[in-house]
Amino acid sequence: MRVAIVGATGAVGQELLALLAERDFPVTELTLYASSRSAGKTLTVGDETYTLRALPEDGNLRADVVFSSAGGSVSKAHAWRWAEHGALVIDNTSAWRMDPRVPLVVPEVNAEAALSHRGVIANPNCSTIIALLALAPLHRAFGLTRATVATYQAVSGAGAAGIDELRAQTEAVLAGEAPTPQKFAHPIAFNLFSHDSAVGEDGYNVEERKLLLESRKILDAPELMLSATCVRVPVFRAHSEAIHAEFARAVTLEGALAVLRAAPGVRVVDDRPNNHFPMPLEASGRDEVLVGRLREDASRPGALALFVSGDQIRKGAALNAVQIAEHLARQGALRARELSA
Amino acid sequence: MRVAIVGATGAVGQELLALLAERDFPVTELTLYASSRSAGKTLTVGDETYTLRALPEDGNLRADVVFSSAGGSVSKAHAWRWAEHGALVIDNTSAWRMDPRVPLVVPEVNAEAALSHRGVIANPNCSTIIALLALAPLHRAFGLTRATVATYQAVSGAGAAGIDELRAQTEAVLAGEAPTPQKFAHPIAFNLFSHDSAVGEDGYNVEERKLLLESRKILDAPELMLSATCVRVPVFRAHSEAIHAEFARAVTLEGALAVLRAAPGVRVVDDRPNNHFPMPLEASGRDEVLVGRLREDASRPGALALFVSGDQIRKGAALNAVQIAEHLARQGALRARELSA
Repeated sequence: MRVAIVGATGAVGQELLALLAERDFPVTELTLYASSRSAGKTLTVGDETYTLRALPEDGNLRADVVFSSAGGSVSKAHAWRWAEHGALVIDNTSAWRMDPRVPLVVPEVNAEAALSHRGVIANPNCSTIIALLALAPLHRAFGLTRATVATYQAVSGAGAAGIDELRAQTEAVLAGEAPTPQKFAHPIAFNLFSHDSAVGEDGYNVEERKLLLESRKILDAPELMLSATCVRVPVFRAHSEAIHAEFARAVTLEGALAVLRAAPGVRVVDDRPNNHFPMPLEASGRDEVLVGRLREDASRPGALALFVSGDQIRKGAALNAVQIAEHLARQGALRARELSA
Repeated sequence: MRVAIVGATGAVGQELLALLAERDFPVTELTLYASSRSAGKTLTVGDETYTLRALPEDGNLRADVVFSSAGGSVSKAHAWRWAEHGALVIDNTSAWRMDPRVPLVVPEVNAEAALSHRGVIANPNCSTIIALLALAPLHRAFGLTRATVATYQAVSGAGAAGIDELRAQTEAVLAGEAPTPQKFAHPIAFNLFSHDSAVGEDGYNVEERKLLLESRKILDAPELMLSATCVRVPVFRAHSEAIHAEFARAVTLEGALAVLRAAPGVRVVDDRPNNHFPMPLEASGRDEVLVGRLREDASRPGALALFVSGDQIRKGAALNAVQIAEHLARQGALRARELSA
């Protein structure tokens, strides 16, 4: 299969490269695209050295599958042109997620939706993917009606620049210097702040709106009510979320635990005697989303409280995209062009 | 007024010393008590040098007001004996908070309760104080029925040892070493974890239970429903909380904002265009609790979402205790023993 990565030098691009190798994705030819600034430079992956290319003017990426994570404006401008040249575009940006022509897919939740693509499939927002790994099986079992979510989001969600900023600022503060925000508007070292996306008229920011709208689309639950408070915390690469969830049907702790233990992509970490629950440090580098702190919500009969941590770059972005491609390949719906030609 | 501080070398004790000076509390004599390990050592405050004393066997602290922050076991064992010797004990620990003989006081919320003390007044849990500065005025205006809370708690809640651990671990991780947890069970550098208090049979930990039970007592709202998820984050000294609140009476954004803008001890920080909302770094060292991210809850008509940050050592502990004493003094209910003798 001819694979192209657009945005190969970014945090998600790097993770995609690692995952393709680790999971033995059947790559026959790998082409790496980057910004015109990086084009011409080389990138070594395992034993291979690749020359980074600028995006071609004609839109032909010479690939069967394109993983796009170069940013929303790039995907907005080019995704359908790439698809017209025969590529399946799996887009990691927010550009096309809410477009009715575009399936929005978490393979453990709605893999079947991927099959109806017209050339572009969208990878959901990282916070949405991580929340839904836990909420989707509970929704299927009990009928999710409302959720309130408070997030603890890692700086990796803002890319490599976010990671660099946390490290540099923390070093400065420990040395007695003032933190100098560059990527973020506010200091991130030993601090936290409301998510760095624009705030709308209703007071919700773009990240919070994504959690609501994308969850509705992925779960095919247009009446789902969801209110999120998204917060950036000084953690490198896994997002956590405290969730209160209400259901249409009666739910017990045991019933919910049984559902989560059987859920794909979920690892239940709920060791009360040892106070061991999901933590970003343990979620980092893992494929599974960690789910725990499961409680019957003391403030509402039939509701649940829970806490999740998931690797934002991995399952929240790169891994989910690769899993979409793998699912289509397993269904025989993703063919190398040489096979279908 | 003769003042004693029990636990003078701890994080809260140190803040108490600073506040008494800063607020010109009418101290005629200041006696500092510490553990037998520290007794005999000296402590310099401003121009004065104090010798730290061990707690006297006879329970007579020779003080009109005792601020106790040496830990729950010390207060449990001695608070009423100190009171029998004529002292008003303002207890910063959890030892007596839920005792029906003991008022649990946040001066901005239920100052009048302090007047009915029998020698011991309890200072609430820090997370409770910080949440109630915002929730109590909303409760009075609209009738709070239910709240879900997710906390982002600073390491200072675990005392000076927590602060030292965050600093030391962060330095280690930045130097490429593994973090070595001592005070906390899990790494805190660039990580977060479920609050380090024991987990009960219903899955809620002690901190979460305090938030529920103390809020009910302070608000005199025995039917209030509240579910909290308490989380320790790598922040030095201010706690933040994401809150969803439901009310008995209709509430609008404008109405809630007007209530909060008029609320004592609250500073509204809600600058949507500049994405500037409450942050622990800006709450640190301030008397007020910062309140913002105020939204009509998109998931339930008539509910509100908000975010608060407050200095955990200051308003969450030491300042609240001093304010209780100041309130009683203003009411003429706190007399130096020489005056009443």
